[in-house]
Amino acid sequence: MVKPYVMGIDIGGTNTVFGVVDARGQIIEAGKIKSSSETAELYCAALSVELNNLIEKVGGKDKFNGIGIGAPNGNYYNGTIEDAPNISWAKGRVVPFANMVSAATGLPVALTNDANAAAIGEMTYGVAKGMKNFIMITLGTGVGSGIVVNGELVYGHDGFAGELGHVIVKKDGRACGCGRKGCLEAYTSATGVARTAKELIEKGGTKSLLAKFDINHVTSKDVYDAAEQGDQIAIDIFKETGHILGEAFANFIAFTSPEAIVLFGGLSKAGKYILEPVQESMDEYSLGIFKGKTKLLLSDLPESDAAVLGASALAWEIK
Amino acid sequence: MVKPYVMGIDIGGTNTVFGVVDARGQIIEAGKIKSSSETAELYCAALSVELNNLIEKVGGKDKFNGIGIGAPNGNYYNGTIEDAPNISWAKGRVVPFANMVSAATGLPVALTNDANAAAIGEMTYGVAKGMKNFIMITLGTGVGSGIVVNGELVYGHDGFAGELGHVIVKKDGRACGCGRKGCLEAYTSATGVARTAKELIEKGGTKSLLAKFDINHVTSKDVYDAAEQGDQIAIDIFKETGHILGEAFANFIAFTSPEAIVLFGGLSKAGKYILEPVQESMDEYSLGIFKGKTKLLLSDLPESDAAVLGASALAWEIK
Repeated sequence: MVKPYVMGIDIGGTNTVFGVVDARGQIIEAGKIKSSSETAELYCAALSVELNNLIEKVGGKDKFNGIGIGAPNGNYYNGTIEDAPNISWAKGRVVPFANMVSAATGLPVALTNDANAAAIGEMTYGVAKGMKNFIMITLGTGVGSGIVVNGELVYGHDGFAGELGHVIVKKDGRACGCGRKGCLEAYTSATGVARTAKELIEKGGTKSLLAKFDINHVTSKDVYDAAEQGDQIAIDIFKETGHILGEAFANFIAFTSPEAIVLFGGLSKAGKYILEPVQESMDEYSLGIFKGKTKLLLSDLPESDAAVLGASALAWEIK
Repeated sequence: MVKPYVMGIDIGGTNTVFGVVDARGQIIEAGKIKSSSETAELYCAALSVELNNLIEKVGGKDKFNGIGIGAPNGNYYNGTIEDAPNISWAKGRVVPFANMVSAATGLPVALTNDANAAAIGEMTYGVAKGMKNFIMITLGTGVGSGIVVNGELVYGHDGFAGELGHVIVKKDGRACGCGRKGCLEAYTSATGVARTAKELIEKGGTKSLLAKFDINHVTSKDVYDAAEQGDQIAIDIFKETGHILGEAFANFIAFTSPEAIVLFGGLSKAGKYILEPVQESMDEYSLGIFKGKTKLLLSDLPESDAAVLGASALAWEIK
């Protein structure tokens, strides 16, 4: 019998959100707890109380196909969270989290990283519905990616494929949080945009509307608001960031020749300010046979729901 | 009933080689014709005479599972050769070559580009046997690639995925034959190595053993021979080339996290001179979670047979 529900859980650096999702992609019940905890066991116990409450509320576990979890450094093959620097109970540890949640709920659990979950979400409920080949790029505090080939997520031989935020785009470039230099993430994450803003303002952008902000904490929303008022520095920040993204995308296209690249998260909300330079560089740097073929799309899932929907979509794939 | 044979055809810029291959990967009959011809139809007619002769010789077409073809700009989805610049009858044209050969032989035909065929060859008969995730890199006149994910070749949405020779590794770098600048191929193909040799000799390598060669036509074999005699410029040419390859591989690994990268062709025959710098840069530039995990392997298929074996392997996949 086809089960009517799945549970989606998204473990973020601060909050964990979860929800019961039906086959049409509606979140019919939802909840939230803090991600921080002294141990993985205590965290799992607290989470499971909430999950079991929701499960009972909608009719019990027989109504569920399973539970999907999106987590930083989540490994699909092992169901583990491996050394996630922003999760206190998973830092420097390998936590068998899928098994722990399965034991506590009696349901099968699939787990992957958050960007892969987002890709499955787009494929199941979003703009990538029906696509067999696309790349999801999440532009947030970090830059993540989920790569879909022949209708399947690419996990690689070890479960960690798709770290496109850590492709090196400028040799000996900006220091990245990963310890290396010049990663895409160092330019196109939230902090990357703030660093570009700082550089351009210091280079002589004192007339910019952005000069009044704390220069180390300018957000892409601030930059967007300034751009909307015609601020040239703000527009240039998006141009520079967009060109770096577009050049990287031209190389990504040579790899898997995707039907689309789907953008999600902070920076993608800058609309034309970011999309136009991205498209410009994609066109300029793509190999002839690929030019103009790969669509650049924005996720249309509501941001508040996307993480839970993405994680939940993984649970439909449990056989 | 399982058919005992397949036919493999490799269409190169100058010669077309073909052979009857058995299930153990033995080439039991082989032949060769020139690739040049006035029209695709004439070429196909000439080739088909040879193919049908071999087919009859080993017992007729009922003994064949099919024919596999590796061709420049070969498109797996459509069975076409699309605008192949080095094949006179396929330049600026889309040739439905799989259908033409199928009509002339009465056998099912699968066609893909030469690097993809090489990857399938390695997976079927070579060092990648049993691997579900690896990347094949062919280092010849050009630089080609075949990417295997979850045990399947990556063709992308249009059949042209896997053009890793045309990933841009140096912005505004060397002019590439594709019309753009800074492609991997411009540094690591046969001509790329010759250009690096020229640069290093002109920069003051007059004492190099390579200085006596026609500076525009130094081959990786010449460089290898000089390196074997302790020539520092020759060793530096491989170092520079290897470092560029290794840096590119570190980015490739972030994409599909392959179990191995398999090298084939001219440059790969330089052994330790090229492998050591490649490995060095792969290690240096790989993201922490990937470090030391992806093997760097050399193809062990005999070069004279590899193209035919690779193309033939494609024909075992015909259902």
